[in-house]
Order: sequence, then C-alpha cells, then structure tokens
Amino acid sequence: MSGAILILSGPSGAGKSTIIQRAEPLIGDFYFSISTTTRAPREGEKNGVDYYFTDPESFEREIAAGEFLEYARVHGNYYGTSLRPVREALEEGKLVIFDIDVQGHRLARERMGDRITSAFITPPSLDELERRLRSRSTDDEETIQRRLQNARKEIEALEEYDYLIVNDDLDQAVEEFVALARTARLKPGREAAREFRERWNSLG
Amino acid sequence: MSGAILILSGPSGAGKSTIIQRAEPLIGDFYFSISTTTRAPREGEKNGVDYYFTDPESFEREIAAGEFLEYARVHGNYYGTSLRPVREALEEGKLVIFDIDVQGHRLARERMGDRITSAFITPPSLDELERRLRSRSTDDEETIQRRLQNARKEIEALEEYDYLIVNDDLDQAVEEFVALARTARLKPGREAAREFRERWNSLG
Repeated sequence: MSGAILILSGPSGAGKSTIIQRAEPLIGDFYFSISTTTRAPREGEKNGVDYYFTDPESFEREIAAGEFLEYARVHGNYYGTSLRPVREALEEGKLVIFDIDVQGHRLARERMGDRITSAFITPPSLDELERRLRSRSTDDEETIQRRLQNARKEIEALEEYDYLIVNDDLDQAVEEFVALARTARLKPGREAAREFRERWNSLG
Repeated sequence: MSGAILILSGPSGAGKSTIIQRAEPLIGDFYFSISTTTRAPREGEKNGVDYYFTDPESFEREIAAGEFLEYARVHGNYYGTSLRPVREALEEGKLVIFDIDVQGHRLARERMGDRITSAFITPPSLDELERRLRSRSTDDEETIQRRLQNARKEIEALEEYDYLIVNDDLDQAVEEFVALARTARLKPGREAAREFRERWNSLG
C-alpha cells in the first residue's frame, strides 16, 4: 500500500502540537511535514525541527520553480510546504502528517485530494481559545488579537474538513487523533486502488 | 454532537460480520442497521437479528411510501434499509453502522453524504475469496459463482469509498475497523457543524 496524508488545521492555541507529540509513540512510522517560512524564529525554535527558516528571495525562487505543494502569505510572512520530501515519504508508504492552515488544506486537496484525510482541531469555544493563548504568555496583545481574529475566520471552513476534534479533554483528543491516524492509512488513493484491483483480480 | 454513519461494503465472504462481531465490545454504543429483505431466511437466521424478513408486497408498499433510505433488487430479491430507526439512532447521537452493497452506498451518499464515512472490506484477492466461500460450505456452486461474479463487479467501485480494509489478517482487520468506527464518530455533518460554530463563537 502506498502512503497517505493526514492534514490537521485549527487555530494557533488549539493544542495541535501537544496532541501530535503525545500521540507520536502510538501511531507507528510517519513523516511530519515541516514547513518552510520566512518569519523570524521564536525563542527556542530550531531550524529543521520547527520550521525550515529561509529568506523571502529563496522562498520566491522555490515558488517560481513549482517546488511547493502549498504556500501562503500570512501576517506578511511566507509559509509553505516543499513537495519533494512529501513525495519521498509517500513512496516509502509512510503516513505524512501536515499541520497547515485552511488555505493550505484547500491547495493540498486540489493536488492530492484522493490521498487526504483531514481534521479541524479546536478548543471548545472562542473564549476558551483566548484563555489558552493568554495563559501560555508567549504572545503580545496584538498577536493574541490577530490569532483570535484569524481563528474566527478559519472556523468558517469547518465543513471543508472530514472530521472535527474538539480539544476539551486532552487525553480524549489524543485518543481520537490516534484513531484518525490509523484510519488515514487506510486511504489507498486512486492509483494504488487501481493497482490493488488489478492484483486482486489476478493473484492466487 | 449528533450521530454519524459508517458504511461497510464488500463481497459476501469478506468477513464483515465477523469483524463487526469481534469489534463490538471495543467501539462503544452503536446502532447496527438491520436490513429488510424478501429473500428466504437461511438456516439459523433470525428475524429482527439478521434481517427483517418480509414479503414482496409489503416491501413494495414501503417503497411507495418513501420509507427506505436505500433499497435494491439483487438476485431477484429485495433488500433495503428503513429510514425511521436510522433517524432515531442519529438523533440519539449514536454511530449507525451499515453493511450494504455498492448501490446502497451510492443512494445513502445522496441522502446523507455529509455524515458518512465508508469502507470497502475485501479478502486480499479474488482467489482467496473463492477459497473462503468454498470452505464455509453454506452455498451451492451456482451461488458461489454468482457471489464471485458480483464481487468482481463490486470491486470496480472501490474508489467511491473513503477507506479500504484488506481482511488478510483478521486481528489487524478488527483493529483497523475499531479505529475507523472511532474516527467515523468525529464527522459532525453539515447541520451539527453549523450549530457547533454558532456555540463556539458565543460561549464562554
């Protein structure tokens, strides 16, 4: 079976990174897609772990070369996903997990929709999101307001996703994510489905 | 959260019933949709457990009244799914599991597509399916040939399904099914998604 894709979106502060970290030992071999960005690293962020950090000129050169699966400009910075490592992981039969925004999800669907399972992850309410953003105290007031505004806009796209994980209880959200990752691997994609059927009809 | 639907299709002999029976203690509260049919009960089959058995006249009266979610005529017999118990189970927030054929899946998608997760379940090959059909020795040669012919036709619809479970190793197939059932519950459906968003924007 060829690889498959699991896309996660949801507001910053929804707990996506925490959920993935906790689920990691339970979901088998996967490739977590690392985005490339032109924004400055935050404190503690490492190149090649949190993001590939690059400059706008290099980013635009890669866009021109068609080397991004998806990219977007958010808050004046570029964010994008290089196609090559994703293709390689899929060819190795791996599950590729993406943490991308609503716009990125749309673009990825256009390119590789037949291999994608997607979920929107969110705290139970906008007010709870605000409490979480304030309690982690890594963002200034302007950033918090921008994140909340962005969250209000992103949740409008909820219906575009296959599934919804409400991160109210973290243990439950992790358990749901583990099931989702297991399920996502069962999506063959058009090409692999055709190959499977050919073998199915001919093999003993 | 409102209920959701999980549809399973696949050739007779794929092991769907066995998988569901084994998974039953592991997937929480659900309603297994029982089909109504006009075919004669096989040895050991019970009315209200395996099927609701009825006569062609009653079945056609229910069709005319629009009381079937889906129905089909296969091998000269009617098979169908009454809408009322499905609606009731969904309103109670339950996962509704269907074991229906390709045609039934298509009709259900038209009616309630936004709440459906679906999987095609099959043995690893047509030859293996034939071996399994012969080893269970409940069917005569004509029936076996008809089932094989039907399986060759049904697998052409593989791409219409969200997921594929290859029942090669039963334990693994059960595990995959359990994850699938857990995931299917995360599908809110259009109406529930809208309600969730409204609450999300307004609640503290």
